[in-house]
Amino acid sequence: MENGACKIPINVNFHVPEKVSRKTGQDSTKVNVGQVEIGGSRIVVIAGPCAVESREQLFETARSVKDGGAQILRGGAFKPRSSPYKFQGMGEEGLNLLREVRNETGLPFVTEVMDTRQVELVAEYADMLQIGSRNMQNYPLLKEAGMCRKPVLLKRGMMATIEEFLLAAEYILNQGNDQVVLCERGIRTFETSTRNTLDLSAVPMLKSLTHLPVFIDPSHGTGLRWMVPAMAKAAVAVGADGLMMEVHYKPEEALCDGYQSLDQPEFHQLMIDLGKVAQAVGRSI
Amino acid sequence: MENGACKIPINVNFHVPEKVSRKTGQDSTKVNVGQVEIGGSRIVVIAGPCAVESREQLFETARSVKDGGAQILRGGAFKPRSSPYKFQGMGEEGLNLLREVRNETGLPFVTEVMDTRQVELVAEYADMLQIGSRNMQNYPLLKEAGMCRKPVLLKRGMMATIEEFLLAAEYILNQGNDQVVLCERGIRTFETSTRNTLDLSAVPMLKSLTHLPVFIDPSHGTGLRWMVPAMAKAAVAVGADGLMMEVHYKPEEALCDGYQSLDQPEFHQLMIDLGKVAQAVGRSI
Amino acid sequence: MENGACKIPINVNFHVPEKVSRKTGQDSTKVNVGQVEIGGSRIVVIAGPCAVESREQLFETARSVKDGGAQILRGGAFKPRSSPYKFQGMGEEGLNLLREVRNETGLPFVTEVMDTRQVELVAEYADMLQIGSRNMQNYPLLKEAGMCRKPVLLKRGMMATIEEFLLAAEYILNQGNDQVVLCERGIRTFETSTRNTLDLSAVPMLKSLTHLPVFIDPSHGTGLRWMVPAMAKAAVAVGADGLMMEVHYKPEEALCDGYQSLDQPEFHQLMIDLGKVAQAVGRSI
Amino acid sequence: MENGACKIPINVNFHVPEKVSRKTGQDSTKVNVGQVEIGGSRIVVIAGPCAVESREQLFETARSVKDGGAQILRGGAFKPRSSPYKFQGMGEEGLNLLREVRNETGLPFVTEVMDTRQVELVAEYADMLQIGSRNMQNYPLLKEAGMCRKPVLLKRGMMATIEEFLLAAEYILNQGNDQVVLCERGIRTFETSTRNTLDLSAVPMLKSLTHLPVFIDPSHGTGLRWMVPAMAKAAVAVGADGLMMEVHYKPEEALCDGYQSLDQPEFHQLMIDLGKVAQAVGRSI
Repeated sequence: MENGACKIPINVNFHVPEKVSRKTGQDSTKVNVGQVEIGGSRIVVIAGPCAVESREQLFETARSVKDGGAQILRGGAFKPRSSPYKFQGMGEEGLNLLREVRNETGLPFVTEVMDTRQVELVAEYADMLQIGSRNMQNYPLLKEAGMCRKPVLLKRGMMATIEEFLLAAEYILNQGNDQVVLCERGIRTFETSTRNTLDLSAVPMLKSLTHLPVFIDPSHGTGLRWMVPAMAKAAVAVGADGLMMEVHYKPEEALCDGYQSLDQPEFHQLMIDLGKVAQAVGRSI
Repeated sequence: MENGACKIPINVNFHVPEKVSRKTGQDSTKVNVGQVEIGGSRIVVIAGPCAVESREQLFETARSVKDGGAQILRGGAFKPRSSPYKFQGMGEEGLNLLREVRNETGLPFVTEVMDTRQVELVAEYADMLQIGSRNMQNYPLLKEAGMCRKPVLLKRGMMATIEEFLLAAEYILNQGNDQVVLCERGIRTFETSTRNTLDLSAVPMLKSLTHLPVFIDPSHGTGLRWMVPAMAKAAVAVGADGLMMEVHYKPEEALCDGYQSLDQPEFHQLMIDLGKVAQAVGRSI
Repeated sequence: MENGACKIPINVNFHVPEKVSRKTGQDSTKVNVGQVEIGGSRIVVIAGPCAVESREQLFETARSVKDGGAQILRGGAFKPRSSPYKFQGMGEEGLNLLREVRNETGLPFVTEVMDTRQVELVAEYADMLQIGSRNMQNYPLLKEAGMCRKPVLLKRGMMATIEEFLLAAEYILNQGNDQVVLCERGIRTFETSTRNTLDLSAVPMLKSLTHLPVFIDPSHGTGLRWMVPAMAKAAVAVGADGLMMEVHYKPEEALCDGYQSLDQPEFHQLMIDLGKVAQAVGRSI
Repeated sequence: MENGACKIPINVNFHVPEKVSRKTGQDSTKVNVGQVEIGGSRIVVIAGPCAVESREQLFETARSVKDGGAQILRGGAFKPRSSPYKFQGMGEEGLNLLREVRNETGLPFVTEVMDTRQVELVAEYADMLQIGSRNMQNYPLLKEAGMCRKPVLLKRGMMATIEEFLLAAEYILNQGNDQVVLCERGIRTFETSTRNTLDLSAVPMLKSLTHLPVFIDPSHGTGLRWMVPAMAKAAVAVGADGLMMEVHYKPEEALCDGYQSLDQPEFHQLMIDLGKVAQAVGRSI
């Protein structure tokens, strides 16, 4: 039986939208980012800094995550920040650095797009577009992403139900683009000791309802660097198709989210540990 | 003492951003929508259909809410819908109808803008731009709205804290536009008997922290037509500067949100009842 | 039409349990606490300190809340505290003080019972038993309260749905005791600027589904002394049958919850303001 | 380094209470239930029916979970049910059956106690007392459990923060009983596709803050039989010291929670799969 499918009939109290719905016996969709295939038995790791901050920071980190086994690089050029007074990203200069580092390392990259007017520009540079949590229900942006024929990493809104998450993906598929990866990144609850509550049950639920691959982001999901390894292992055990993690060459100096970024040795050790868990559940990484 | 200020020092566990912050002794900002002043002792009612559906529907409803005492008309031309298969609004044709009905009735109108590319267009027609819950953290949209010099009705995200709500408003003020009205419209909780949980405590909290006027939307806040009058009265009693309510000439036939729309006689009766509560708290409507 | 009933059919996604359910045309149950009737057109105010701390504190506060118009006194003798190291209440000595102060002032009193083994003891002293939020689903305690034939004030659990709240009350009625008052006191949400989120929509919802009277506790509901008056006014406007509020003769010195207790002048002023709102909605206080 | 400890300093926004707090370098507490040690490198599985329903049901299920590798039996004799009209458990007759089945199988058992008046009785029969979610803040019950010198399985309230959970455990330790196991069983959030949201991040958080062992209950945590295996694997990967799972010999006929109970073949297969994950993280089961 294919990975992720479920023998027991699933009953949910909502209608799963047509195009994202997994039909009986349907295989998972494979999403291709550069040469990397997402949705197969190999678990894919996306790693890199929260934001592109400088050439040195980006190149150092990219080389290191590649060495550790990451297959896709992440890095924000346009950053959605709660406050207008915080670092908003390097913009197109950041995209240029990402392109350069891809040329050197061979790693394809994913980066966030926040504005319908930027989709064309970002799609010119990036191998995969990210639509962030705060924009999960930004319908014009979803439609633009659906029209641009690049793979899309769609993050779950921090208070979005599974139903709303699937409907948001349907907006993209409905424009003819089925290269969509869903990413759970923590939901907002009453608990405050973690930044968010990482909802790992979203993985089996989504895998049963939709043919789209499902990722976990334990960095945003916990907001705690020391907790990322434990939750990453759990994500692999629960059946995620991949992980998205923040790694920084100097977390203490990061302009953004350093408190939840792994340093390079931590990332390398974690990749070794994840390999064992992957094997235990019949997958590789 | 001016309405909304608070004698007891407020302690919150976050920093209130500079431009939205109410300084000691500072008056509330007056926001002017057409000839209507928001933020004074008179409570302002915005009413109308969820979406513009037809000339007949819009004109009938507009005349009726004006008769009832509404001072501003609402009506969506571009609609954010969870599902891509639901009615998405009439677009620019809807804006044209709204302009026509303003010419006839004299009611200024507010309508939602969802896309940075539409801000200029919508601002040409509308007297006030609405930024909806799902876009409360759509930062490029907030910036565009801040640059366009029309008053903005900013709705609280269904998962946004008071701090994030104020930071979102700060994005608009930071572009030089201080004509912003904050609107609480229900937050998402575990409770499912109502569509959302209307957080009326947001009114005294926001009134104490910021100089911006604060509205309540009891239609979205409850999702239940029969409950709107009770919550509207509570909103006036708690100190809201205004109300935004959905009214439809035939709620049973509405293309959108009919289950939470008042019919015309209900709206007229409610306005009479609200007048009494307003008087009891030293205001008028 | 009787206060609280609703013309429009209510649809909820659960079964309202038999004995608490309001049948078509059924009047609200009147609950009698000493000589005080709850559930009629007059709004009843329960006021007093969080905990009984001393003779002086209790007598001073009781006299003052009586002067202000409170009809029932509150005061905890057995206190549920999150930490085992905090003041746990005066126990039976506190009950004795409450009895004495009733003899002097004529005010009946409500006090919390936490343990099935104490129900008989507390019922000997008190005019009304309170079952607190943390015990809303303590079924043996609910059954004991149902058997003891004293009126019961049942507080909503901080994360209890309306359905669960009604089922908890059904446990009491099912033992033959229909003298139950429901009290909304704030639910737990993601918002942290208030202690809880006071769910005022629970009032019209409960009034429509059940014949039991419904109270609001704005002290616990907000956790903020300065916000109590605004929310109390809203509670009256929304249709609550009564209010429960913490008042202390020296809030700054209270052993428990002083930060949410009104002082005596604040309480007196509030009662005057509430009278106006009550009149505006056709009731008295 | 001992399992569960954390190299990076943990910052939480609350004070960890004295007796449950893990001091620097402190080992995990070992909790002994019959001959079974909890808190070591071997992961302990507690399995059995939600409620004791009959001799046949209990004996069949107990033999089967023992064969599968469970070390402790679970089964409720006194059941906390939301509705007074649902099966409330077999009471002392259920306790007698549990004692008999222990005599036959050698499996020690845990069963819930809900009432201070029952603690002595239940402690006479059971090897471990369970305090359920709804009673996590039933302080008299916590104190009684603290005085009775039997190990206690304390389940997290569905609305309880990590801080409140630790404070509840402190009530037990403060009476001199340190044989306490903490069990995360799902918290209440806005998401409704699962019964609760299983908060696996509670495991590393609790393991870092306290020396007490930490269990996961994926049955209540998801409310979905088909999802239990995936979440159980994740629980082992994240570092839980044990699992508590509902198993029934005929889930379709269960009087209680059948929809979340594994049948016997599912349980046996799961135990094999869990063994592989345990090995991958350096533990056994």
